[in-house]
Formats: sequence, structure tokens, C-alpha cells
Amino acid sequence: MKKVDHIGIAVKDLQASIAYYEETLGLTCLKVEEVESQAVRVAFIDAGNVKLELLEPMNENNAIHAFIQKKGEGIHHIAFGVDDIEHRMDELRTKGVKLLSEKPSPGAGGAQVAFLHPKSSFGVLYELCDKTEKRD
Amino acid sequence: MKKVDHIGIAVKDLQASIAYYEETLGLTCLKVEEVESQAVRVAFIDAGNVKLELLEPMNENNAIHAFIQKKGEGIHHIAFGVDDIEHRMDELRTKGVKLLSEKPSPGAGGAQVAFLHPKSSFGVLYELCDKTEKRD
Repeated sequence: MKKVDHIGIAVKDLQASIAYYEETLGLTCLKVEEVESQAVRVAFIDAGNVKLELLEPMNENNAIHAFIQKKGEGIHHIAFGVDDIEHRMDELRTKGVKLLSEKPSPGAGGAQVAFLHPKSSFGVLYELCDKTEKRD
Repeated sequence: MKKVDHIGIAVKDLQASIAYYEETLGLTCLKVEEVESQAVRVAFIDAGNVKLELLEPMNENNAIHAFIQKKGEGIHHIAFGVDDIEHRMDELRTKGVKLLSEKPSPGAGGAQVAFLHPKSSFGVLYELCDKTEKRD
């Protein structure tokens, strides 16, 4: 784990949330993008040493929509920046950590991402986030 | 808001959680302390650019115990480092943000802390955390 790359936050209304972070808290929205594979619209807010990743579901058939239905809007996950995500996943599995997927999948910002099962992590959904450029 | 000082995480068993962060995730526990005024035992985990603040309730009569009862273990709050917390509280109130207290109160590490109402912040419990040395 190099450091915390971002904190994921589930929101119902991305534009209203961005306005709150910019106008009320005085932070800056770095960019907005759609991650089609996960059906979420994403805004990255610059919080100095870490980014806040606001996540709005694009339909009712995705994890962020399910989270909001169950728990309401709020903090969804913490993402650690890593190199060589597949190696890190192997290491964690060897230590008995349950992962939510066999392989990494594409996340926002061109990253490869994978999640640790919250039951392994005392209730916290941790993401591994690999932004290393791949050469293959 | 200067930057994110720490991410607060509610846990049932501080020692077991510390062992997970150190032995499984490879992070370092910086210190453990008791915050009597809030009836929580706290461990700070170094996550590089930010600290993870593990919070274990010391009795059944505090906010962390209530959180775990309602939502289970997991991410509880995000703390922004600030200077001059009372001035920041005034600014936020002027902008229509609801705060959970009139005045700051003592937190871990000798900080003065105050919380924004999650309803103002789209479901997120934000803390203001002022570690500036006071000279009065």
C-alpha cells in the first residue's frame, strides 16, 4: 500500500454535491467522467493530500445504487494506490483476505481496481487502485 | 480546509483491528490513546499521506457504540485539518451548514474538533480538526 489515493463517496445528485464541495467547502472539482463498465458518473474533488471521489449511479443496476438504497448517501470506500495490482491481490489472498473479484477491473481515470471484502477488513470496503501505465 | 487529517473508522475490537492493519496490510500503528471525554479508545494507523483513526467504544453510552449498533463496523467520518476552528465554524454556519455542536470539543491528540451535520454534507460526517497550539 503506497498511500490513500481517494475516498469514494456515494451521492444521489452529482451536480448538487459538486456545488457543495466547491461553493461551501471551498474545494476544487478536478474532473468529471463516466465509468461505463460500472455505470457510475464520477467527480474527483481535490482535498489537498487525497481526492474525494463522488459517485453517482447511472442506473438502478449497480453497486452504488444498491449502497444508497441500503445505507443512504455517504462514504463508500477507501482506495489505496498500489503498483502491480495482481501481485498485491495474490499477497492478500495468501494472508487469508477475501477479495470481491478474481481479477482487477477498469475503474475511473484509467486505473485497474479490485476490492477487499469488508468482512476481512472489519467493515471497511478497501479498494486497490493501480494507475501504473501498462506496456502490454 | 487544509487537507484530510484522518479517516475515522469504528471498530469493535481495537487490538484485533490493529493486528489486521499491521500484519495483513503492512501499515504501522503510530500510537494508541484513550479519549475520556468521548469514551473511545483510539489507534492511529499511518497510511502514508493520511492517518486512519480506529475508534473503539469504551462503554455503551457514546456515539461510536451507537454507530456500530446501527450500521455495523466501518468508516465513520472524514476529518479536515483546519486552523482557527471557531472561525471556520462561523464561516460554515454563515453558508448555511448545520454543525453538531455550538463550540469545539477536545478530541484525540490534543486537537479541538467539531462535526458538520451529515444532512448538510450529502450523508458524510465531516470533522474539523484543529491541532494548532493555543497560547492562552
